[in-house]
Formats: sequence, structure tokens, C-alpha cells
Amino acid sequence: MIALAMFSERLQQLKPYVPGEQPTDRPYIKLNANESPYSPSPRVQETVANFSVSSLNVYPDPDSTELKKSIASLLNACGGLLPNYTSTEKNTIQGLPFEISDKMIFCGNGSDEVLSFIFYALFSGKDPLVIPEYTYSFYPVYAGYYNIPLKKIPLKADFSLDVDALVNEKSCGLIFANPNAPTALALSCGELEDLLNRYPKDRFVVVDEAYVDFGAETAIPLLEKFSNLVIVRTFSKSMSFAGMRLGYAIANEEVINAFTTVKNSFNHFPVDALCQKLGIAACSDPAWYGNCCRSIIKTRDDFVLFLQQNGWIVSASKTNFVLAAKKGFSGKALYEHIKKEGILVRHFDMPLISDYIRISIGTDAQMEELKKALLSL
Amino acid sequence: MIALAMFSERLQQLKPYVPGEQPTDRPYIKLNANESPYSPSPRVQETVANFSVSSLNVYPDPDSTELKKSIASLLNACGGLLPNYTSTEKNTIQGLPFEISDKMIFCGNGSDEVLSFIFYALFSGKDPLVIPEYTYSFYPVYAGYYNIPLKKIPLKADFSLDVDALVNEKSCGLIFANPNAPTALALSCGELEDLLNRYPKDRFVVVDEAYVDFGAETAIPLLEKFSNLVIVRTFSKSMSFAGMRLGYAIANEEVINAFTTVKNSFNHFPVDALCQKLGIAACSDPAWYGNCCRSIIKTRDDFVLFLQQNGWIVSASKTNFVLAAKKGFSGKALYEHIKKEGILVRHFDMPLISDYIRISIGTDAQMEELKKALLSL
Repeated sequence: MIALAMFSERLQQLKPYVPGEQPTDRPYIKLNANESPYSPSPRVQETVANFSVSSLNVYPDPDSTELKKSIASLLNACGGLLPNYTSTEKNTIQGLPFEISDKMIFCGNGSDEVLSFIFYALFSGKDPLVIPEYTYSFYPVYAGYYNIPLKKIPLKADFSLDVDALVNEKSCGLIFANPNAPTALALSCGELEDLLNRYPKDRFVVVDEAYVDFGAETAIPLLEKFSNLVIVRTFSKSMSFAGMRLGYAIANEEVINAFTTVKNSFNHFPVDALCQKLGIAACSDPAWYGNCCRSIIKTRDDFVLFLQQNGWIVSASKTNFVLAAKKGFSGKALYEHIKKEGILVRHFDMPLISDYIRISIGTDAQMEELKKALLSL
Repeated sequence: MIALAMFSERLQQLKPYVPGEQPTDRPYIKLNANESPYSPSPRVQETVANFSVSSLNVYPDPDSTELKKSIASLLNACGGLLPNYTSTEKNTIQGLPFEISDKMIFCGNGSDEVLSFIFYALFSGKDPLVIPEYTYSFYPVYAGYYNIPLKKIPLKADFSLDVDALVNEKSCGLIFANPNAPTALALSCGELEDLLNRYPKDRFVVVDEAYVDFGAETAIPLLEKFSNLVIVRTFSKSMSFAGMRLGYAIANEEVINAFTTVKNSFNHFPVDALCQKLGIAACSDPAWYGNCCRSIIKTRDDFVLFLQQNGWIVSASKTNFVLAAKKGFSGKALYEHIKKEGILVRHFDMPLISDYIRISIGTDAQMEELKKALLSL
């Protein structure tokens, strides 16, 4: 038995972490982690099958140079969003007003690592970092890790972001997800521009676009006008790549250089050589991922209709999940009923949303199973 | 132009980092990063070739459960060291005095990440962390990152660790590499036991065995007696896996649990699913890696003999590199001469070793090229 006092004071102050549920008593349909139900592109499969491990004895390119070029090309080719539209809609999609260079991209081991560098490099001082009260749960974690004071701004009654309150609070920076989680609601690019216009230009605004490819608008066009804007992306959702760990930031070149300085100063584990290769292969096939997003959007919209028709309260989701509630049931009761039917969703022990469950959008077949479970409530 | 004042105070205080040299003016033989010149096992190649990416849409096992079992099996099968001996020597190799369980293993994205968790969990308080003055350059970096006071203990005149001074200094913990870098010298298991016997039992001693498979003795047998001992290993050197990022710690189960708590509290980027699979494949082929280590040891010993016969001062290396000097030349002059011949080695702008160069051991053919370059000095 090792005395707790032997460990660092930091460790002694950590609150015990409760890991995410991975029950093994039976097979479950997993609709609890906002993962894509679809495979990565066949080009990723081809690349891994042909990969020679004989170069793995040497360290990877610390800067992910080729990968950054591929990401920039993908964003330029697609106007910053995966082509999640049907071919008849295609003509309505606009390109970016400027070219994204690879110098505007920073890659990390998942957007969580990228966020860690962002918090380190951008937020400090006596004014708090301002976040919405309900948003990605890791922002408060990193704020605590870096001793950044934090101020949470309540959502509006309709669960949307309170932009007035966000910009008016004295702060050392802003960070939020857009679309936000777990509300699934998004600000439009115009609303983001309004927010940026009203926020001090000498402090950073970080927009986490983890879910942007499922029907929201990207803030990328605003990068030209706002050098204090930083956009975060992940390969884990719309790129079906949660099993690898790959994320990136898009920002002004000088901001990217700051992230590189932090990484090189403290961190010797860049994106590994194989992940860089597979990321490049993924970027070469936007049509595949656009199709996957389109399927998820269609499945989601069908499911939302089903929920509405069956007396549920459900958000106007721009993500690959929905936040939904049914009168007379707690979120926990809903979760437990659904689990009994062999399906895992998420519920939250948090005041505003304790009556809601978060349901990730799976395949049509998986959602049919879920619908059956919901009809037996 | 973004004003430096816009960034966090942390960033503003960072000293600009000078990245490692990667010249592209001509092809170079790279003997500057202590990488293995040999490929990973054919079983790793087979595993990657047969890997189905269709499961990459879901998050990896955060605990690397199967990988930890494979590492434990490898260590138990080999007595804690890769079989770097010839078959005639084999009978002299002893097994471990106890079985290593997977609960004694913690995996991370390279030993650098594992070290980060170790520093976070184990070292704090007003007494300094004690390290040798010359050892792995990342220990002071992490100490700075976590605000841990640091005390450096000079090496002895023969570059070996000053065990008396290390154990007698009042400290919150000890960390050093064994074999040490860049000296290439190792303490024996008996000397490590003596050190641990003389050090307070309520503070941790971390032994970084990055290079242990190239002829040194492991501290693993001491884990049974010393619950304050933590051993760090990497797949980057003897496992030819620098291009992926994989490292691990071996320690008492409660210490491992502390690392897991830290990781789960702050870090959502576990070892990725593909790296876990490839690590498992690597662990299944100790004979391959043992052969690679044996080749490197033989090449190194031949090269040391060459250096001695040609008037060099060279350490009794237990690693895959040597630290060497030649009277009348500065380390920088040696480095530059060798670079002109198309070969990269390392030199250090540090008082004690400024006359030395560090040469990683390559293939026999690469070392023949280097010998030619050295003979033309």
C-alpha cells in the first residue's frame, strides 16, 4: 500500500475520474460517443495496406508538413466544409474568399491535444476565460490545468449561445463549440461575424468546429478579417477517424507559429508517421466523407421528425447527435430504458439538461432499433 | 502582425526553440537521433498490411488493455530484456524473480508522454527534484513545465553517476537514464539496488531504461522490493518504432493507477488503435528485435575498437550510441568535418562535453562510411 502522501500535491488534489461506460454484459449499439457509423475512405484502407513499416525506425516529421498541405488543399477544394450536399444543391456552395495556406494549419494528436496548446498559448491574465455554461466538457478541465480563471455564461432559454453576454463580459478570451455540444445548435457565419466585431481585437476567440460538417456554417471566411480568430477541427467525427488521433487548428500564421513553439518546447510526440500518411489519404477523398455526412444528416433529420411526431422535445441539430427529452421522464430514466433494449446513449447530471439524453446518429438500421426502443417507453 | 502581448504570459516567457537539424542540401547518413537502423519485425508489416480501417470510426481502447498484456508477456518471456545474446550465451540469462502483470504497465504516446505523467503525479514539494547534470534533456523541461524545483548533481570525473551525491541530496525524487545519455554509461542492477537502499522509501526513483536493451542491466527485478521504483521504457530505440509513438512505465500497481488517473483527468488522446495493434505485433517477436540489438551491439563494439585504435577517447557504451572525442579537436569541429562527408552526428554546447560528439550506431555499411570520414580528419 502506497500512501497517498507519497504522490505529488497535484495528484492528491485530483478528483477521482469516472471513466465512460463500456459495459460488456451484452453487445450494445453505441450511440453515446458521437462517433461516425461509417468507415474511413477506401483510400485510407489502400494506404494502410500498402504501407511499408521499414521507415518506422526513424522519428516522424515533427511538423506534419505534407499532412498540413493536404488539409489546406482539402479546405480550399471544398470551401472549408465537406461536400455534404446533393449534386443538385452543389451550385449553391461557395468557395472561400481566400486561399488557406499550409502555414495556417497546426496538427496534433486529436483536437484535444490541439486545444491543450491553444489554452497554453492564448489564455492568461486576471480576466477570466469566458465559455458558455454548457459546452465541451474539456474546456474547464484545461482551464483548471493551466490555472486560468473561468467564467461560465448561461445559455439562453432556447439553449442557444447568449452572444451579448459572451462579448460583454470582461475576459482574457472566448472559447465555445459551434455547433455547440451537447445542445447541437449552431451560430451562423453572420452571427459569428457579429460576435467577432463586438469582441476586443486583442483577445482570442476560439471556435471549435468539431461538428461543423453536419450542416452548420464554418467561420473560416472570417479568418481574413479577424486575426484573433482560431478554428479547431477534428478528424474524429466527420472523417471517421476517432480510432486514430488527429485534429488541427486553422488560424493566422503567427498564431500557428505560437502553437508550434509550445509544442516544440514541451512535447516530443508529434502525429506519428503512419497517422500522417493516413490523414493525407483521407484528405484526398472529400467525396467519400461528404457522402457519409449527407447520410448522417438525412438519418438525423428523419429521426428528428420521428421524435417530433412522437411527442419528444428535440433540438434543431446541426451535428451528428440530437439532444432530446420526453415529458414525464428524466434523462436517467430514458437512458436506462434504452440501455435495457441494448442501446447506449448519454445522459447528463447537470441542472438544465438533466431531463435530456444525447443520442449520436448511427446508421439507418441502428436508428430503427432505437425507434423501436423509444416506442416501447 | 500580432503583438506578442496578445499571447499568454506563459508563451511570452518561452525561450525560442531551435529545432533539430534536418538539412536537405544532400542525402545524409543520419547518425544523430539514436534511431535503430533496422526495420520493425515482419509481423508488424503483416499486421499493418492486414489491418481493416473499418473500425477506426470508433475511439481506441483508452487503457491499451491488450497492448499492456502483450508488453507484460514480452517482459516475462525475456527476463525483462530483449534476447540480445547469442544462442551459446543463452543459458546464462536469468528469468525475472516474479511475474510482471499487465496492471504494472502504463502505456503512452512515446516515453516522453509517459514522463510527462510521471512528473505530474510523482514530483512536488519544496525539496528539489534531483537529476544528474548530464542526462536526458527533457527532464529539466518537464520540471520547468510543472514548476518543480530542480537540482543538478555533477557527474564524476569518469562521467559515471555520482550515486553518493544523488542519494544524499535532500530531494522530492530522483530521475535519471540508465544507461545514461549522452554518456552511454550504465549502473549495474547491484549498483541500482544500493542506490535504492540508501534513498528514502517515501520518495520516487525513476529509472529511464530507453537504452537498456543494448547491453545494460534492467532494474525490473528490484520492483518487488522497492515500491518507490518506476521504470520507463520506449519502443523508439530497440523496437525500431520511433516513427510511431509508443512508450510505457513499469511500476507498482498503485503507481500505475496514479498515472491512469492523471491521464484520464487531462488527456483524451490515448495510444491510437492502429499503434496499439502494431505494438502487440511487435511484442510477439522478441527474437527479431533481439537479433537487431545483437547486431547493433556487435557493430558498436567493432566501432569502439576502431576509435580506440585511432587515438579517440570513447566511453564504454551500453547503448546504441557512443560519446567520443579526439585530442586537438572540438566537438563542433568534429561534427562539421563529418557533416562535410555526408554524415550527421550530434555535438553539444555544454561545458563538460563540448569536445565530444555523440554518434548513433548504424548498420555496418554506414559505420564503414563514417570510419572513412574519421580517417580523413
